[in-house]
Amino acid sequence: MTQPVALADWGSFHVGGRIVEIAGRTIEKVRFTSSVTFDWNPNGRYHVDHAYVQYMIPAGATRLPVLFQHGGGLSGTMWETTPDGRPGWARLFLEAGHPVYVIDGVERGRAGWCPFPEVWEGSPVLRSAEEAWALFRFGRAEDFAARRGFAGQRFPVEALDAFLAAFSPRWASNNERAQAALIAAIERIGRCIVVAHSQGGEHGLVAALARPELVAAYVGIEPSGFPEPSVASAAGHRFLFVLGDFLDATPLWTGLVAKIDAYAATLARVGARSEVWRLAALGLHGHTHMPMMDRGSEAVAARILDWLNAA
Amino acid sequence: MTQPVALADWGSFHVGGRIVEIAGRTIEKVRFTSSVTFDWNPNGRYHVDHAYVQYMIPAGATRLPVLFQHGGGLSGTMWETTPDGRPGWARLFLEAGHPVYVIDGVERGRAGWCPFPEVWEGSPVLRSAEEAWALFRFGRAEDFAARRGFAGQRFPVEALDAFLAAFSPRWASNNERAQAALIAAIERIGRCIVVAHSQGGEHGLVAALARPELVAAYVGIEPSGFPEPSVASAAGHRFLFVLGDFLDATPLWTGLVAKIDAYAATLARVGARSEVWRLAALGLHGHTHMPMMDRGSEAVAARILDWLNAA
Repeated sequence: MTQPVALADWGSFHVGGRIVEIAGRTIEKVRFTSSVTFDWNPNGRYHVDHAYVQYMIPAGATRLPVLFQHGGGLSGTMWETTPDGRPGWARLFLEAGHPVYVIDGVERGRAGWCPFPEVWEGSPVLRSAEEAWALFRFGRAEDFAARRGFAGQRFPVEALDAFLAAFSPRWASNNERAQAALIAAIERIGRCIVVAHSQGGEHGLVAALARPELVAAYVGIEPSGFPEPSVASAAGHRFLFVLGDFLDATPLWTGLVAKIDAYAATLARVGARSEVWRLAALGLHGHTHMPMMDRGSEAVAARILDWLNAA
Repeated sequence: MTQPVALADWGSFHVGGRIVEIAGRTIEKVRFTSSVTFDWNPNGRYHVDHAYVQYMIPAGATRLPVLFQHGGGLSGTMWETTPDGRPGWARLFLEAGHPVYVIDGVERGRAGWCPFPEVWEGSPVLRSAEEAWALFRFGRAEDFAARRGFAGQRFPVEALDAFLAAFSPRWASNNERAQAALIAAIERIGRCIVVAHSQGGEHGLVAALARPELVAAYVGIEPSGFPEPSVASAAGHRFLFVLGDFLDATPLWTGLVAKIDAYAATLARVGARSEVWRLAALGLHGHTHMPMMDRGSEAVAARILDWLNAA
């Protein structure tokens, strides 16, 4: 941080969700500490399907709040500090005068999760280092062992272990619950900008279309899902899609890029102000699926801040 | 917040832990978003047993850093904002001039967790509303349905649902891993004060005894576990144990209070400066197991800050 930032307020809240009641399970003996062994009764009431939101409000803020929605298999930590220890986008946007809200969606991070299989369908999945390496376009799968990234790629591969430590399991069945909790967060925050990544990019689109009066602008960082219902509510609203480099590295990405271009065009046809950025075309080369962590993340943030403030 | 607080720095890091390699599992088809269905290969490398630490450093800080260790079934959110929306202790200590570090221990909150049963022994347990009600001494078990707390108790029972949303599953088998990650966090932070709650109270004691040169003072808020090895390293060091009210409500608490008194005496015998506070005896009545959330949490924090600064 170059300058101290004065906070008028900071804190956190949980939002959305519901109470479930678990019944019919057996009491288990659990050793909680070296001094306490306890008859744990799993039956009872639990809060599930909520999100956690942490906020920081700069003193004298005049810019719109920015809500950061993480991607799949991650939590809000991805916006705080890069794996190699540089300021994350939440910090850069805060220093630019925006109140920042960082969400941990349903089942992720400080939202907690539910261990009873009767509540969420299916099993949790966690992303391996190898899968992240290939899927996030750090390098070719066969170069993982040597940690040799694509020529010119900018993810700090020397900090890969720190990145892995931020991974979080997820249930594939929870997308709609996560979208509902994001909308609940936006309703509590009020009119704001949504910056959303990857899997969370779809959640952000759902929210922007469902609450156009509350989402002043949508910034999708390589979103990986595109809601099907009518996009008529996008008319007159701003949508920015941001793409890194190495987009032809895998068939998955070739397909997603085509979908992003098509979706942006669909939004434009109903009167949205919709743009797709290929960062390389802006002179910002070598970005991966994680431009908020890559070397040069500061320059990408600065471009997005300029775009937001040129409204 | 009465006054804006100027931050010289803030951010987060993960610390401790290890890489595990999962092998021999079957590839599964997973629908990650409405547009991406993926062959998920669970085999590969994962980071486990680490903690997450978020920090805020006030501009011009001259006081020692304070590391907040949550209790069992909770994460670092417990120190941020009370369930009824008042500033948490992390904020009050920051405003008093301390750099604050809030940990999410192994398997909790933003530390993430490991869904492969071959990595951690046993199954995760989650605390129900009913168990929390009785165990945290909000009221009698039979008064849970009516949400009628003990006469004079100060937990904001009208915000019980918000409190439940902050609960986190845990593995009873992870205590030693959590203690190791806490020690790794302290080694990274440097000399600091440890404020630890309930199950985390034991982790804090283990750390204070293992790294006496780095733990300037230990504040245990109703700790529920007491490490057995030699306490000789406590000589000359400061230990404060803080107890709320309604301590005779359950046999569990009657037993724990006796253990706290005995442990504090053991520490004193080897030359530690060890104190036990019963908040009611200080004129702070009606506190539960959650004095950092009770109405009057500000007054409890102020007493602890006075104690720390009278060193």
